[in-house]
Amino acid sequence: MNTQAKLTLLGAGPGDPELISLKGIKALQTADVILYDALVNEQLLDWAPAHCLRIFVGKRAGRHEKQQEEINRMIVGYAQAMGHVVRLKGGDPFVFGRGAEERDFAKAYGIKVEYIPGISSSIAVPGLADIPLTQRGMSESFTVVTGTLRNGEISPDLKHAASGQSTLVILMGLKKLDKIVEIVGKSRGGSEGIALIQQGSTSGQRVLVGNLGNIVSLQHSAQIQSPVLIIIGSVVRNRHFEQQIWEDFSHFIYAQV
Amino acid sequence: MNTQAKLTLLGAGPGDPELISLKGIKALQTADVILYDALVNEQLLDWAPAHCLRIFVGKRAGRHEKQQEEINRMIVGYAQAMGHVVRLKGGDPFVFGRGAEERDFAKAYGIKVEYIPGISSSIAVPGLADIPLTQRGMSESFTVVTGTLRNGEISPDLKHAASGQSTLVILMGLKKLDKIVEIVGKSRGGSEGIALIQQGSTSGQRVLVGNLGNIVSLQHSAQIQSPVLIIIGSVVRNRHFEQQIWEDFSHFIYAQV
Repeated sequence: MNTQAKLTLLGAGPGDPELISLKGIKALQTADVILYDALVNEQLLDWAPAHCLRIFVGKRAGRHEKQQEEINRMIVGYAQAMGHVVRLKGGDPFVFGRGAEERDFAKAYGIKVEYIPGISSSIAVPGLADIPLTQRGMSESFTVVTGTLRNGEISPDLKHAASGQSTLVILMGLKKLDKIVEIVGKSRGGSEGIALIQQGSTSGQRVLVGNLGNIVSLQHSAQIQSPVLIIIGSVVRNRHFEQQIWEDFSHFIYAQV
Repeated sequence: MNTQAKLTLLGAGPGDPELISLKGIKALQTADVILYDALVNEQLLDWAPAHCLRIFVGKRAGRHEKQQEEINRMIVGYAQAMGHVVRLKGGDPFVFGRGAEERDFAKAYGIKVEYIPGISSSIAVPGLADIPLTQRGMSESFTVVTGTLRNGEISPDLKHAASGQSTLVILMGLKKLDKIVEIVGKSRGGSEGIALIQQGSTSGQRVLVGNLGNIVSLQHSAQIQSPVLIIIGSVVRNRHFEQQIWEDFSHFIYAQV
C-alpha cells in the first residue's frame, strides 16, 4: 500500500482492453483503489494487485449514477486512507469525462494528481469503423461536441459547427438524433453523410451509415443502441463509397446513401 | 517472417514512449518492417524483433521529406516482399497523418490493412500541460484543425471555428502564428487565452501561455520551437488562474494574462 495520497486520472480507451497505454497499465499495477465508470472494459481491472479495491461508480440501467460530488469525496477519502487512487474513465478523462472537476477537487485537498491520457473514442471509434476524421483534400478539421448539455438542450457549439465544413463528432447524442439531424440538415442538406457507431472497437460494434435525410428511419429499423458515437461529414460518404468497392465489411449494416 | 502481406497503421502517441497502446506493442513485436516518422519516439523501435527493418521516412533538417507517393510504394513493396509492415506515426494515424491515403493505396494492391489508434497529441498534449479541452460549464466542444494547408493558406475551417465558442486546437501552426492570432482575434478579441506547447509529453516540453494580444511578442522572447501545438479558448485562461493558485508548474514559462 502506498503511503502518499495520489490520484491518477487514467484513460481506459474506447473499449478494446488492449487499447490502454503501457503507462496506464503501470498505474493500474500500483493502484490501491480503482474507481471505474460504466464505459470501462472490466478486463482492465485484472492488471491491479490483489489487495486493490475495485469500485464501480458508473450509471447502469435501473440505478442512478453516483453524484459527481460523491465521487469527488470518494477520491479524496480513499486517497487519504489508502494511498493511490486510479480514476479509470472510458476514452480520455479530459474529453467530456469531468476529469477536470475531479482534478480540481483533489488538488484543493493537497492530493497529488497525475493525468495519463487515453485513446479517445471520439477519434478512434470513427477510425475503427474505417472513417478517418481527416483526409487530405477532403476534411481539414473536426469538431467534437457533446449531444447532452446539463439543461437538456443541444449545444450552440453544434449549431455553429453545423454551418461550417468541419467533420462533426457527437458524443452522447443518440437520444437527440432527430433534433441533431434537423439542426445540421438546415445548413448541410439531406445528402450529407452520417454514421452511428455502437460500442466501437469491441465485438459488439455495429455501424449504421446513411445520410441526414434517411438516418432517422434507418435507425427505426436498425435500433442501434447507446453508447453511440455520431459522425457527420463528407468523410462518411467517402467510407461508404469504399465499402461498395471492397465489400469486406460483412459485419456492418449499411443502406444506400 | 510473415508470409501474408499486411499493413498496420499504428499510432505512436504524443512522444512519451509509454503512451503507446498494448495493442501497438504487440504489432511492433510482429513487424518485419517499420516505416517511422520524425515525430515518433525511437525508443519504440526496441519492441521490434531483431530481424525487423527500421526505416526512417520523415522529414529532418536539411533533408527533404520523402514524397508520399514514395512512401506508398515502399509500403506495398515491403509488404509484398517481407510480410508485416508497421507504419508508425506520431499521435494517431488518422489525425492529419495521411493514414487514409496509405490505407487506400495498400488496399488497392490487395494488402490487408489494420488500424491501431494512437493517443492523439491534439487531446493529450493540452491535458498534459494541465489544459483539459472540455470542462463542464466552460467548454462544450473543441475543434482540431491543421495550420498548414497544401496551398500555404489558413484553413477556412479555422476562420469559421474562430467565430464560435469551440476550444481551438491547431496542429502545425507555429509558422502562421501571426496570421492565426489576427484571424481568431477578430472574432474573440485580444484577451482570449492561447497556449503554445512544444514537444508535449516529453522531457523537452515547454509551455507558453498568454493571450491573443500578447502571444506574438511573448514568443519573440521565449522562442518556442516546432513541433508545437496551439490551443485557444477559455480553458487556457482557466489553467493560468489555477497555475497562480497552486504554483506547482515550475517547468512552465508564463506571462501575465
